[in-house]
Amino acid sequence: MIIERFPENPLIGPEDVVPSVEGWEVLGAYNCGAFEYEGRIGLLVRVIERPRQTDPKIVSAPLMDFSAGEPRMLVNKWRRDEVDLSDPRFVKADIIYDAITSNLRLAWSHDGKAFEISDTPTLEATHQYERNGIHDPRVQFIDGRWTIIYSGGDPEWGVTISLVTTKDWNTFQYEAVLYTPDNKDVAIFPEKIGGSYCCFNRPSGVYFGYKNMWLGFSSDLVHWGEFTPLALCRPGMWDGERIGCGPEPIKTDEGWLELYHGSDGHKYCLGAMLLDLKDPSKVIARSEEPLLAPEMDYEKYGYYNNVIFPHGLLKRTDDIYWLYYGGADRYTCGCELSVSGVLSTLL
Amino acid sequence: MIIERFPENPLIGPEDVVPSVEGWEVLGAYNCGAFEYEGRIGLLVRVIERPRQTDPKIVSAPLMDFSAGEPRMLVNKWRRDEVDLSDPRFVKADIIYDAITSNLRLAWSHDGKAFEISDTPTLEATHQYERNGIHDPRVQFIDGRWTIIYSGGDPEWGVTISLVTTKDWNTFQYEAVLYTPDNKDVAIFPEKIGGSYCCFNRPSGVYFGYKNMWLGFSSDLVHWGEFTPLALCRPGMWDGERIGCGPEPIKTDEGWLELYHGSDGHKYCLGAMLLDLKDPSKVIARSEEPLLAPEMDYEKYGYYNNVIFPHGLLKRTDDIYWLYYGGADRYTCGCELSVSGVLSTLL
Repeated sequence: MIIERFPENPLIGPEDVVPSVEGWEVLGAYNCGAFEYEGRIGLLVRVIERPRQTDPKIVSAPLMDFSAGEPRMLVNKWRRDEVDLSDPRFVKADIIYDAITSNLRLAWSHDGKAFEISDTPTLEATHQYERNGIHDPRVQFIDGRWTIIYSGGDPEWGVTISLVTTKDWNTFQYEAVLYTPDNKDVAIFPEKIGGSYCCFNRPSGVYFGYKNMWLGFSSDLVHWGEFTPLALCRPGMWDGERIGCGPEPIKTDEGWLELYHGSDGHKYCLGAMLLDLKDPSKVIARSEEPLLAPEMDYEKYGYYNNVIFPHGLLKRTDDIYWLYYGGADRYTCGCELSVSGVLSTLL
Repeated sequence: MIIERFPENPLIGPEDVVPSVEGWEVLGAYNCGAFEYEGRIGLLVRVIERPRQTDPKIVSAPLMDFSAGEPRMLVNKWRRDEVDLSDPRFVKADIIYDAITSNLRLAWSHDGKAFEISDTPTLEATHQYERNGIHDPRVQFIDGRWTIIYSGGDPEWGVTISLVTTKDWNTFQYEAVLYTPDNKDVAIFPEKIGGSYCCFNRPSGVYFGYKNMWLGFSSDLVHWGEFTPLALCRPGMWDGERIGCGPEPIKTDEGWLELYHGSDGHKYCLGAMLLDLKDPSKVIARSEEPLLAPEMDYEKYGYYNNVIFPHGLLKRTDDIYWLYYGGADRYTCGCELSVSGVLSTLL
């Protein structure tokens, strides 16, 4: 066995989620961080929602507003023939607005397959630069607390990376913005490298540059620097247009094993890269072909079609891990993988 | 007097610069850091060059190559009818290439007006993510050494911010990449704020977000975080399309006075913002109109037309400063300003 989807997939879908505003619709419950706490498996899931689109002439999109101090949810409306809706995820008006708002919700399970997801947002936007909401949390246990690293989106400020911490999954501490726009896909190595925390990150270039992966280093998890190039997109291959990390890497005798996503511009797939244990900026091997490509309906049809987006990782045995991933920006899915099996595809 | 151009402008132009490769042409000597050292005024100037374009059917562009270890300069060539040259600064082929290479050269003066610029590059690209060269240095004296913060450009990796230090303007120490792509326009406050170094930076959003200004904080100048939004572009105004810092801010009784650039998409102008002394993320005032707009030929016609780009600052008296700026991405220019005069336009 190298990798096998859970037969229970999809594990969570929008039909399982209560909208945060009465009369709204939930369009997806997908990219999630994964962890174990007090005998249960927890997922922190991205949930996207918007007002039901009932008037065929009008498009409406939510936007958190912080101008009065306390956050409140506004709904902007436009005539459909006056804006660009060619990409259904965006409303391109005077500026580009997100068509949805995004919050994070806890889902709990005893077996890692059957989950109950919170009826209300667990974490929402808290700052003026997060008016589109917050998304794509990665959860890790570091130094006696869980770190939640998520992306915040804003039509004017761009896409940031922020850190929230918790010790009990009940109270949460907002720490800081870790990366300026646009950066995404940050996961921290489970051990320090040369005395420093080390993380993946995926900045976006505007004039030049694909969406490539870099390493960053830090002594306190809040201030990052010493950025080091890690991996470029490989034009013509499955990861030719953009790449980004999945969850934290797995330490193996052969090197750090990272399960990452790549897109060729048409679909997002799962692949692996193997990095030198002492100097993870040295890439030892990288999947020539995807480990998993969108084949199932829950990976092919959703808010954004043809996406497998690896996100949350749980160790089951020394060799067996469960990987939770987003399917088609709509579903929370899972798969089981063998580390030795994945390594055999690389070496 | 609020602000007055030097009558000696332009101070340095491409005709004053020897190309680094025989037969090449220098297209600009502009955005510079400014400092005083051993009784002289020094500028560290961005110089752009390329092979002479002698064949009307061919466009050629330089690219540093690090694949063999030691850097060497390559020249890529394309048929002009097979690439997009609509923006003369770029060759848009399979990916976007810079049309020029960029290096930094020291220029020395006894009066701050007449400069002699080095015949060879003082600093060049040193890393694989800087194959387009390095540009836009800002120079400050911090903790017993000069910091040189510059941008590196690369067709695949994007635009980074790196730190080099020197104690003697003869030997230079490369420190680290401080900001991942795309970020530009970093200048450090001359004093710590709340115990931390504080800097301006200007990230670029891809999907969302104008080119806005943020603050960052650090304890060691290498690892930055706690990013805080500072100022948005103001659509419809002179700084409606992009903004970025000039040199380090000036401490005044009224607040931190920052001389910054803004563009409305047609021209780059000089303006000022006044920030709270204790919490510089609080903007007290901002120029409603530019302090200086491109009016002179050396600001209107160059490698990129209609640009005033503030960069290097020298204190002459408590009230009088000299500001060195780039004119039309071609010339090094200077102006004299009165701090009280500029403050009077803001308060």
